Parts: sequence; structure tokens; C-alpha cells
Amino acid sequence: MPVLQPIVNIAELLYQKGITDVVVAPGSRSAPLTLAVARHPHLRVRVVADERSAGFIALGMAQQSQNPVALICTSGSAVYNLAPAVVEAYFQQVPLLLLTADRPHEWLHQQDGQTIDQATIFGTHVKRSYDLPADYSHPDARWFIERSVNEAINLCRLPAPGPVHINVPLREPFYPTAEESFRAERVRVLDTLPAQPTLSTDTWHKLLNEWDQSERTLLAVGQIPYDPALLAILRKISEELGVPVVGEITASMAHNDQFITHTDTFLAGIDATNAEALRPDLLITLGNSFLTRNLKTYFRQYPARRHWHIHPTVDRINDSFQSLTTLVPSEPRPFLDKLFADLDYQRFLQGDDADQNDTFLNRWQTADRQAAKLVRQTVSGTDRRLTDWSAVQQVLDHLPAQSVLHLANSMPVRYANLCGIDEQQHIQVWANRGVSGIDGCLSTAVGTALLTDQIVTLVVGDVAFFYDRNALWSNPVPPNLRIVLLNNDGGHIFRIIDGPSRQPELERYFETPHGYTARNTAEDARLDYQVCTSLETIQTLLPDFFTRSERAKLLEVTTDKYVNQEQFAAYKAQCRQVFQ
Amino acid sequence: MPVLQPIVNIAELLYQKGITDVVVAPGSRSAPLTLAVARHPHLRVRVVADERSAGFIALGMAQQSQNPVALICTSGSAVYNLAPAVVEAYFQQVPLLLLTADRPHEWLHQQDGQTIDQATIFGTHVKRSYDLPADYSHPDARWFIERSVNEAINLCRLPAPGPVHINVPLREPFYPTAEESFRAERVRVLDTLPAQPTLSTDTWHKLLNEWDQSERTLLAVGQIPYDPALLAILRKISEELGVPVVGEITASMAHNDQFITHTDTFLAGIDATNAEALRPDLLITLGNSFLTRNLKTYFRQYPARRHWHIHPTVDRINDSFQSLTTLVPSEPRPFLDKLFADLDYQRFLQGDDADQNDTFLNRWQTADRQAAKLVRQTVSGTDRRLTDWSAVQQVLDHLPAQSVLHLANSMPVRYANLCGIDEQQHIQVWANRGVSGIDGCLSTAVGTALLTDQIVTLVVGDVAFFYDRNALWSNPVPPNLRIVLLNNDGGHIFRIIDGPSRQPELERYFETPHGYTARNTAEDARLDYQVCTSLETIQTLLPDFFTRSERAKLLEVTTDKYVNQEQFAAYKAQCRQVFQ
Repeated sequence: MPVLQPIVNIAELLYQKGITDVVVAPGSRSAPLTLAVARHPHLRVRVVADERSAGFIALGMAQQSQNPVALICTSGSAVYNLAPAVVEAYFQQVPLLLLTADRPHEWLHQQDGQTIDQATIFGTHVKRSYDLPADYSHPDARWFIERSVNEAINLCRLPAPGPVHINVPLREPFYPTAEESFRAERVRVLDTLPAQPTLSTDTWHKLLNEWDQSERTLLAVGQIPYDPALLAILRKISEELGVPVVGEITASMAHNDQFITHTDTFLAGIDATNAEALRPDLLITLGNSFLTRNLKTYFRQYPARRHWHIHPTVDRINDSFQSLTTLVPSEPRPFLDKLFADLDYQRFLQGDDADQNDTFLNRWQTADRQAAKLVRQTVSGTDRRLTDWSAVQQVLDHLPAQSVLHLANSMPVRYANLCGIDEQQHIQVWANRGVSGIDGCLSTAVGTALLTDQIVTLVVGDVAFFYDRNALWSNPVPPNLRIVLLNNDGGHIFRIIDGPSRQPELERYFETPHGYTARNTAEDARLDYQVCTSLETIQTLLPDFFTRSERAKLLEVTTDKYVNQEQFAAYKAQCRQVFQ
Repeated sequence: MPVLQPIVNIAELLYQKGITDVVVAPGSRSAPLTLAVARHPHLRVRVVADERSAGFIALGMAQQSQNPVALICTSGSAVYNLAPAVVEAYFQQVPLLLLTADRPHEWLHQQDGQTIDQATIFGTHVKRSYDLPADYSHPDARWFIERSVNEAINLCRLPAPGPVHINVPLREPFYPTAEESFRAERVRVLDTLPAQPTLSTDTWHKLLNEWDQSERTLLAVGQIPYDPALLAILRKISEELGVPVVGEITASMAHNDQFITHTDTFLAGIDATNAEALRPDLLITLGNSFLTRNLKTYFRQYPARRHWHIHPTVDRINDSFQSLTTLVPSEPRPFLDKLFADLDYQRFLQGDDADQNDTFLNRWQTADRQAAKLVRQTVSGTDRRLTDWSAVQQVLDHLPAQSVLHLANSMPVRYANLCGIDEQQHIQVWANRGVSGIDGCLSTAVGTALLTDQIVTLVVGDVAFFYDRNALWSNPVPPNLRIVLLNNDGGHIFRIIDGPSRQPELERYFETPHGYTARNTAEDARLDYQVCTSLETIQTLLPDFFTRSERAKLLEVTTDKYVNQEQFAAYKAQCRQVFQ
């Protein structure tokens, strides 16, 4: 058996266990892993030179496929460059399998190159860390490697999904001779069967009892991967049980006549009377993080009497509204399906109709409609100046149906949430809201575009764009990618939020204007590039922008930070007038 | 007292304890730290948007000043983006003070933005991690903050210097009102006095005894900051005691008629007879890592009978040649000064002359001269084609005296070491050889250039250059920076080293050609840009390239990877002929 056979077999294990996509950052120490996946007949391997970007590209791929993506890099600081994507994957619950080559541990602190303390380098930001042996001669060592890789892949997928790290110390020689086959042997697949946590009938009765005792029940949905079936059951619950369903754009929740999507507008500085009128007795939450402070502050300041959170893993108490009473261990959709079925049957037995709760629902929906109108007036008022916000509204209005929308931190996702999307468009929405960094938004969108044929539109600010421009380097950029760059020459959020905008240090220490345009970056990356400076131009350009093409496209929207600021201030004044 | 007063005082503590330079990456959570340093009258603050680059810029500044540089960033993945620079600083022993803003810990795992597990995030790659309290109302909490910041700064400097992490959880509000002063109070400075480890007379006698018993003593110098006094005592020892002194370019060791600087050439595949002729009885090493495999392999395969390693910290056994017998706890220069003085006195008493060891010294020097000749023939043979290597030789030949040279990983530092520098030029040489990543070479050089008026020349390959191009973004690039970019369109080292060059996957999975030139990057960053494709052009351009100017300059040297490969292969064939 060739010395490296157990390492070669890892590629076959990936494949046998349903992993099809691998991202490789080049390196010499990692060559056995690279060659093993490159020579595997069924793995799709993509090479990305900057590990930070490679990490986020893999994240975007795994988001899109909802399946683990393997990521290979060499030893040393390369590994740390993956960390920003790893921590985002951990908190966003995206499955990544990290295979990091290492020097054998005896070389640590011996002044050898690219040798750092890798075994548990991602700390608590991976679901588990495995450290493979450097020597494979004993059969138990080979058993350990095979078992660990199996376990790691299983663990990636087990709820909640997330990143798992396998550290792979490798001795020289790394490269096979021309005669060595470097083909996988038969591997042993060890599966962990999927299972759903199931509540007992007694427990269900208790929950239904709480539901019955609540006069005002409200459902709020945090970030969650796009799932039309979930949206359908949410709509049914709202329509038939008269329950307000609140969600933000990161839940892919769209405008219709039912869902409440403009909380950021109408909960901003809401007065106590209105707030009490909207306060639920029973709050049910699902999904990951909520986007806006206004929503979070409201539910913290006006806590529900009972608050259930539905999540498949319950080993930690996630009490983000400081009002939690019950953690329900379940995937949200099966829970809601059963809840609705049980309540519907109960209604049938009792001959109830739905409108017991309608006053409460109406209040929320009325506020939502007022807010939607206010936003529409703000972005398409008589003024007609091009701002970040009005550009976002135009982009969302023109999105192709069934397409994918990526929203970068920090202002684009907020503007898009203020605007909202239309239900008829069936848009899948992603944003890196696990830890909400700007560091990999472009790379993540590139990763997503690699794994779908749909048009993938990223709306991104200039700081996030240039920060992550290596996403566009060294790989052909997928032609279905559309980048809308809102270039206001700096970190615009600091001018929008209250604190820094009042400081004399605003421009120099927070916004940091740079004077860059994306023309050169687009040319280097061979993107179709257009720039626009007026609302009329963007309206004219967008239909063609979204047509299919041989190259990815970048539309640079040049805006003025003072005009942006003015528009936002006017909007906030309007909010105060309407909702307080 | 304003709530944030203890945080504002940190800026004053930095200043009182001799820190003058701060690098800030913008953020909102970190605003109290940012404003504290920005409003301090004596701190020089630089703002860098990409935290990865900010980390390496701070590293370059601290290398140059040999004094801790403080680095401020916001919470979340921003912190992880510092990690590549932190681990390089740790292994290169460069003092950095990391001040990372954090959410108060109670928000961890509560789906709040930019909230990750930061308290010990850099693991074993910092000298220590401090986690400040989020509440300062109790006087003991304020005592703890003041004491911890004092201790952290002391620890940065204590041998071996390195990065120290202070995690700073911060509650809102982060921003002072217009009335709040945000000025530091009087702070308490707690100093740790510097001290040198001192060997007893007995211990010295034992060492001198070992020296006397050795017929062939050799000194080898790993990476060490440029120190003319150290180079002077090394030269004196070699000249007067007949001891070969071996060093690489990362020790700033230059050609003269004394030092041995071409080991990479003449130890490559040396035969057993020659190897034995060069083998020392007593090997004395100092400094950090050695650059070349040929040198390391030689000393491992032909271990000295006794091997002393001179280093101020000895809590770990650094046995990189697998031949260590004695760790000597001392700074190298005082040790060598005393060693020379003692031996010189002994010689005087005994009436010895120096040539007892001269045969051994001659052997090393002869091999070195042969190697130097071979290299010179390789790069300036009749062929006269422009290659990476010949470009590096030209650059080194033209370097302004008293200037600073930064050598990027991975091929530039190797080529430069093969060429060597001339002693008359007094060149200070830096390279990120702590962990030898390509990730921050450009940023590090920018950091160095910010803290010196000398010309700072970076020689960098295309992968390292584009990987780290954010070094040139958002800050005016210091005008004394000179970038020589060797663009061979890919990761050239994979074609030069043995293993990958034989694999069919070489180009696609290792080299990864990208087709980029630096023209656009230079234009965006407002650099003077020139490109050259022939040896004649580079010779013509270099004198002007090194003159002072208002803007930094980038010289792109376009080479052909096959010609580079051919030249290196011819060189290796020559080595075999001459030295085996």
C-alpha cells in the first residue's frame, strides 16, 4: 500500500458520503489532499488562491447546495485566512468540511516554515476538531482516519449544520512518483441516520393549551434558507388562524397581503400605546438571527408572556429577545405543519372560525401597509435623485423571477429589507448574518453563483466590495453573477447611524473615503462594466443588466453620501410623524 | 466619571508606556477605543479598512521601530482577519498589542451580530490573552483594566517579544455626547524592569572549555533584525578566531571576504566527503528561522558533536537541527561580546595566534566563493534573458545604500538569498519568515515604509502581490515604497521545486495562472508604474526607480515561467557539476 493511501481514500469518502464540491487553495504541504480530489473522477474541484476568499466561496456553495463543501488548504497562516468564513459558517449554520494540511506536530516551535498550532485552531467556532495521525503504518491509525472522516462529515450535516475541522499532518514525500497510482481503495462508509426530535402527545397538549390561552399569538421568522413550503405553511397559519407572521428579508419573506415585512419602519421609535396594541401574549420564533435593531428592541421592551423558540438543537438557550419560556426541539416546518393540522382539527371540532384574532392581525397589517407606503414615497418621491436606497429599490423591482439575491453587510441588506421583495418574484435571499461581517460578501455570492444556473445578484457597498475583491481573482467569474456596487466612497453606515455621524472623526476614522471606482477591478476580472449616476440611467440599464451573458456583469452606482444621508434623515422624520 | 473613562485611559497608558503608533480598522463597537487614540494628542493613528492588511501593516511598523504597535479592530470576524499577522508576529517575535472590541459576553450565542467567542481567539499564538470586564463601576474592575494593560504592554516587550491580546467588551453607548470630554485621566504606569540573564563564572568556564575542546567551531545565524554591532562582532570572531560565520539574507548578512552566505548553493546535494570536511565539532546558532532547506538538511545530516543555541528565552527546546546540546539564555550580542573578550584574553595569556582553525575556515570560504561565482555566471551569463532571478540580481545591485529591503515569500526571498547583498550597501533586510506565508508581504512592507524615511524596496511575486493588494487601498501609500513585482503569472515556486513540477496537475491546481498585470492596481492606488520585459530595460530603469519621488513606485517585471524554469534547472545542473 502506498504510504499516502489513507489520505487518498479521503477523497473517495467525500464522494461516497455525498460531497461533490471541493474548493482548493494551492499549497505544497496540502498536495496529497489536492491530488487526491483532483484525480477523483466524480469530485468537482475549484481552485482559489486567496484562502480568505476560498473560505467564503465554499460557504456560498454550501449555502446554495445545503450540502457540505470540502475546503483544502496548506499549513501555516493559510489556515487562519479561512477563519472569517469558518466563524460565519458556524453562526449561520452552514456545513463546511475543513481539511487543513499540517506539518507533523513534532516540528512545532522548531523554527520550521508554515508551522503553527493548528489542531484546535478554530476554537469553539467549529462543531468539532479532528487531528489525524501523521503515521499510518499501524492499522488502528488507518481505522481512526476513516472513522474520523466519516464522523466529521456526519457531524457537518447533523442539526444544526456547521463547519467541522480535520487537521491533516503530512510527512514528505507529498507527491506520488509517476508509477504510483494515487487511486482510492474501497472505503468503509459509516452513516448516522437522520432523525427528527418528536414531542410526546402530553407535551403537544401542553403547547396547544398555551396556544388556546393566548389571545394574541405572533410568529416571527429570523434568517432561514429559502423554503417555499415553509413560506406556504406560514401563510396558511396567518390566513386561517389570524396570526400575524413577521419576517425580514433575510427570511426570504416577501410582500403579499399577509406577511408583516416592514417592522424596521413602523417599530422605529414606536410609542407605548401603539406598542402595547401590537404586543403578543404568545410569541413563536424560528430561524437564526433577526436583522434589525428596531425589531429586536421592540420584542425586548414589550416581551410576550410566553415565548417559544423552534429549533432542532436546544443545547444552548438562545434568548435573543430576553423573553424566552420554551425551547421546542424541532425543525420549524414539521412543527408548524403539525401545529396547524392540530389547530385546524380542533377548530373543526369546535366549529370556530378564524376571526377571533383578526383585530390583532389587522393592527399589524395596517401598520405594515402604512410603512410600505412611506418607504415607497421615500424612494420614489418627487425628488428623483439617485441614492443607495433608491438604487436598491430599482434593483429589487427589476430582479428576474426565480433568481437569487445576495445582500452584503452592512447597508445594502438594511436598505433591501426596508424596500422588501415581491412574492411573485420568488426570490431566494442570502446574507452573511451569522456574524454580519463585510469580509466575504462578494466571495460568498461568487460561491453561490458557481452552484446554480439562476441569476445571482449581489448588492454590495464599496467598502465590502473592495475589501473582498480577491473573490474575482484567479477564477473565471461565473457568468450568472450580477454585482450592483453602491459606491458612495466610504463606510456609509457610519453616516447613517446616530453615534459616529455626530463625531468630528466621522470621515477620517470611520468612513475612510478611498476614491476608488470599480472600473479597473472589473477590467482585470473581465467583467462587463457599466456605471450609472442617475435614477433614469439605472432604470434604463437594469432590464439588460439581468439578461444572460457570457460574462458576469458589474453595475457601479455612484451616489453622493450627503444626498444619501439627507434622504435617510427625511425618512426618519417621516417615521416619527406617522408612527409616534 | 464618564462611564467609558477606563477605556479612554488606555490611550494615555499606551503613550505613557512608550507606544506611539496605532493602527485602527474602522468599526462601531470599537469606537471608544478609536476615539480615545484619535483624540490623544501624542499618538500617531493610521486607519486601514481591511483588517488582514491592517494587521500586517502594524507588523511592518513594529518590525521597523522594534517597539510595540497597537492595533484596534471591531468585534466579530474582523478579529479573525488579524490572525494571519498575529501568528506571523508570534513566530517572528514582533511586538503587537491587539485591542479587539467585543460585545459583552452575555450576548454570545444569542444571535446578535458580530458576536463571536473572542476572549482567547488567538489560542497559543499570542503571548497572553486578557479579557477586560464590561462593567467599570467597581473600583477593582478599573484597577484590573489599568493593571492588565500595563502588564500586556510589558509582556509585548519582554523577551522574546510578540503579540499580546486584550479583548475589550464594550456596552453602548459607544459615542460620547458633545459635552463629554473623552480625555484621559492621570494613569498609573507599572513598569517591569528589563534584565539580562547572566551566566555564572562556573557556567562560563564550562562553555569556554567546550570551545577549547572543539577543533572546528562554526557560527550560524538565523533570521534576526538588522544590527550593525552584531554583524561587527560576528566579523571580528570570524577574522580573529578563524571561525566560519554562516548566515542567510534574512540575517541581513552581506557579502564580504569573511561571511559565508552562499550555503544554499554549495550545500545543495553536497557529497559525503565534502560534507565531512565542512562539519563542525561545535555549532553555535542564534536568531530565528533559517531560510533554506539545503542548510537545514546539511546540519541535520551532519550534526555537530556539540550545539549551542543562544536565545534570551529558553522555556522551549528549539532543536531545529536535531543536534542541540545546550541552550544559552542570553541575547546574542552580549553573549558574543563576552565570548570574544574572554577568548581574546585567553589567547593573549597563551600567546596563541588565530590560525589554528584557518584550514576549516578556508574550506567554507572557498566553497562560498565558488558558489558566488556560479550564481553570478547564472544570472549574468551570455544568455541575457530577463528572468525572475536576473531581475532580483539587478535590483539588489542597484539598491540605494542604507535602504530597507523586504523580501516576499516564496521565491523572491530565495532568489535574493542566492544572489546576496553587498556589505558596502548596509541593507536592512526583512522577510516574513515567522510562518513564511505569502498573505501579508505587501502590507508588511507598507508598514515598514510608514515608519522610516529610507527607501523601502519590496521584491514580490505576482501571487503574493495580488493576494495582498488591499495593502495599497484606502491609505496614501508611503512615497518611499518601491515595489518590484516579478510577474510570471502564477505560483512559480511549484514549477521550481521538485514534486509538483512533475505532476500533470501543476498548472491547474498549483500554479493557477490568472493573467493579471498590476497596471490597474497601480493606477487605483496612484503609484508610479512601469513595466519591463528585458534585462536592458530593467538596468536602464532602476537608477531612476530608486530616486526619491512624491509617489510610491511599482516596477512590474514580466517574465516567462518556462525561461525561469530553464535557468533554474541549468543552475542546478551546474551545482551538481561543481559541488559533487
